[in-house]
Amino acid sequence: MTSVLLTGFEPFDGAKINPSWQAVSQAREDFDGAAELHVAELPVEFARCGAALAAALDRTRPDLVIAVGQAGGRAGITLERVAINIDDARIPDNAGDQPVDVPVVADGPAAYFSTLPIKSCVAELHRTGVPASVSQTAGTFTCNHVFYRLMHELAGGRGRRGDGSGPRGGFVHVPFAPEQVPDGTRPSMSVATIAAALQTIVHTSLAVHVDERLPGGATH
Amino acid sequence: MTSVLLTGFEPFDGAKINPSWQAVSQAREDFDGAAELHVAELPVEFARCGAALAAALDRTRPDLVIAVGQAGGRAGITLERVAINIDDARIPDNAGDQPVDVPVVADGPAAYFSTLPIKSCVAELHRTGVPASVSQTAGTFTCNHVFYRLMHELAGGRGRRGDGSGPRGGFVHVPFAPEQVPDGTRPSMSVATIAAALQTIVHTSLAVHVDERLPGGATH
Amino acid sequence: MTSVLLTGFEPFDGAKINPSWQAVSQAREDFDGAAELHVAELPVEFARCGAALAAALDRTRPDLVIAVGQAGGRAGITLERVAINIDDARIPDNAGDQPVDVPVVADGPAAYFSTLPIKSCVAELHRTGVPASVSQTAGTFTCNHVFYRLMHELAGGRGRRGDGSGPRGGFVHVPFAPEQVPDGTRPSMSVATIAAALQTIVHTSLAVHVDERLPGGATH
Amino acid sequence: MTSVLLTGFEPFDGAKINPSWQAVSQAREDFDGAAELHVAELPVEFARCGAALAAALDRTRPDLVIAVGQAGGRAGITLERVAINIDDARIPDNAGDQPVDVPVVADGPAAYFSTLPIKSCVAELHRTGVPASVSQTAGTFTCNHVFYRLMHELAGGRGRRGDGSGPRGGFVHVPFAPEQVPDGTRPSMSVATIAAALQTIVHTSLAVHVDERLPGGATH
Repeated sequence: MTSVLLTGFEPFDGAKINPSWQAVSQAREDFDGAAELHVAELPVEFARCGAALAAALDRTRPDLVIAVGQAGGRAGITLERVAINIDDARIPDNAGDQPVDVPVVADGPAAYFSTLPIKSCVAELHRTGVPASVSQTAGTFTCNHVFYRLMHELAGGRGRRGDGSGPRGGFVHVPFAPEQVPDGTRPSMSVATIAAALQTIVHTSLAVHVDERLPGGATH
Repeated sequence: MTSVLLTGFEPFDGAKINPSWQAVSQAREDFDGAAELHVAELPVEFARCGAALAAALDRTRPDLVIAVGQAGGRAGITLERVAINIDDARIPDNAGDQPVDVPVVADGPAAYFSTLPIKSCVAELHRTGVPASVSQTAGTFTCNHVFYRLMHELAGGRGRRGDGSGPRGGFVHVPFAPEQVPDGTRPSMSVATIAAALQTIVHTSLAVHVDERLPGGATH
Repeated sequence: MTSVLLTGFEPFDGAKINPSWQAVSQAREDFDGAAELHVAELPVEFARCGAALAAALDRTRPDLVIAVGQAGGRAGITLERVAINIDDARIPDNAGDQPVDVPVVADGPAAYFSTLPIKSCVAELHRTGVPASVSQTAGTFTCNHVFYRLMHELAGGRGRRGDGSGPRGGFVHVPFAPEQVPDGTRPSMSVATIAAALQTIVHTSLAVHVDERLPGGATH
Repeated sequence: MTSVLLTGFEPFDGAKINPSWQAVSQAREDFDGAAELHVAELPVEFARCGAALAAALDRTRPDLVIAVGQAGGRAGITLERVAINIDDARIPDNAGDQPVDVPVVADGPAAYFSTLPIKSCVAELHRTGVPASVSQTAGTFTCNHVFYRLMHELAGGRGRRGDGSGPRGGFVHVPFAPEQVPDGTRPSMSVATIAAALQTIVHTSLAVHVDERLPGGATH
């Protein structure tokens, strides 16, 4: 049976919740599809999040991996296009580490592109009424770190099958939950909506093997 | 029985929907409380919206009036504090009129304050997990026009009872619905959440007669 | 000779500077025109700023008064349209006071409109290449307090001449100075540009007695 | 003598000016330093901008190349960190082309990092009072295209000297000029300030060969 891994993150930067993990948990409870859906909560620690991801990959042997993180301030679901090989922490992580201008993987390539059908996912989310777009940057914090580690593992052959094909993977950023911005000065999205969106992304990624060519870029 | 009037607006500026009317309609369907809830859809026309409001007041003889409009770009429910005596249309209304620097009511006072318990409403919305705040401006378009007209009518004695008390009223701005901002570059809120918020505002306004003194201001 | 009073504010909320006072000082140094330009720095204290303004009015007997304050986050010069009769402090002032829902002037009217030619000022600023617009709210902090106090004094006859005419007045909000937002995540404007803009506003206000009817409103 | 190449872009998307070219031209006029400063205006056309860049490289044989483009909506100077190997045009370019999900260079690597001392440049800009930060994305339009083409040329050995060292290069995004946003609803920066900032970036890039490790990242 097809195996899918969804990861979320623990709270960070003093927050009490992280909507990425709340929505991933909700998506597993609600999941309705012909696949086995596994989830993992990753630490917001540069030193440990990569190993935690690797352990989850070993444990679940997924065909599809979607890592999810919080992008506070964004108003829609964003499908990340590219992971870059740099850690540059604006704030300390949950262990107090703050790496600056250190590669995620020494001697790794500068970047990896997502292998999810990101344009098809955006189009399908629009069909279901959920604001969504492609994002050209996942930042330089633990979200990008996990995204880069994931793509590096998959590019390196982890989980590759006898026919040469391997698991696909990518990263999705989600807005604040409403409780994180009580005064409404920044956008938010309900965890239920985010969880439904993650299901849509899983279904679309399982169904679509050649992404649609739809504009999803940015002028800057 | 207590009578409550909720008004929303028709779509404008080329939009297909107006979430204010959608949410007002939904709130009436869902309404659960010891009051009679009436609704009216107002035209986005300076020349007609005031008369449409007055007709709805005559028809429903409300104890409480909450006018609702769309504030595209805001991320939360906003309880308007003040209506000002000016029409200054940045865009033409649905009849093609674009008044500039004309008073809403000739010889009317410069402004009226809302008589809703706006701070209590914000606090109660926070308790229910809905982003909300007080707003210091309802703009200078048809929303402010209807708000000013409403407060002018109430100040003038319309609906006053034998004991000297009269209906209370105010204005609430609501975010875009998700379908209006498919790419998520601007905030949105589901119509179901907005409708639930309107119910919360109705219940709070009926229950609270002396508003709480909670900070809700802006430095500019 | 025509007398003009420009006021700025001292720093607040932990800032080291306040661009309103820096620009007002600079405008006085640079001023080139057939008028006497007086300036005053007002305290960011609800209890004292009104009296400081009144003292400056007594001292300078102005024909034109333009009070200036900082609106951190705005990208252009904003000509305020209306002052409202409420203090509602989101943060404590420099004396630690935080009034909530207290009128600026007990029994004063709900609001006063600026008597500056705000549309003409915006148009003239555009001609000189300075981003500018009309603002529909001056907030509910000390800026609005001083604005309301100013208009209340002028409406009450302070400085009225034998022919019945009196001084004109209004409020202008200015952006952060660049040094206040080093990372550029929020807009800023150089103090030199702000000072030149204030001169433009003074000259336009002295020259224009009937404001132009140009759209300058907001839909919300 | 040291040779420096600055490139800007022509106007696009219906605009009358492009502040990148205006500031590059101004920087050449004002330039004060022990280097020869060359400039080139590039077309906003995917099919031609790369060749125009290559021609300018051939003509000027620079030791340092800084390509500059407009990032409308940003409030500060941004030093771009990374160029990615994708064209995805949200709007048509000046020739009417709108490539979607096409690599900039077939079989090129996924990304290149800037070889400018971007952190030192930001620090120096702050010392001179100019809002600035590192950006994690140059978009997917012609700015990113030129940036990627530039780094690909330099990585491929163009201009390499006998000692194995080669030219350094990178990309800088600049805000709108004030005349592009008359109403001040989006941030702007004067062309004079942008031109001075470009000079600062040139001087810093010539002087600093090992970048400082200063935080300049983003959480998303």
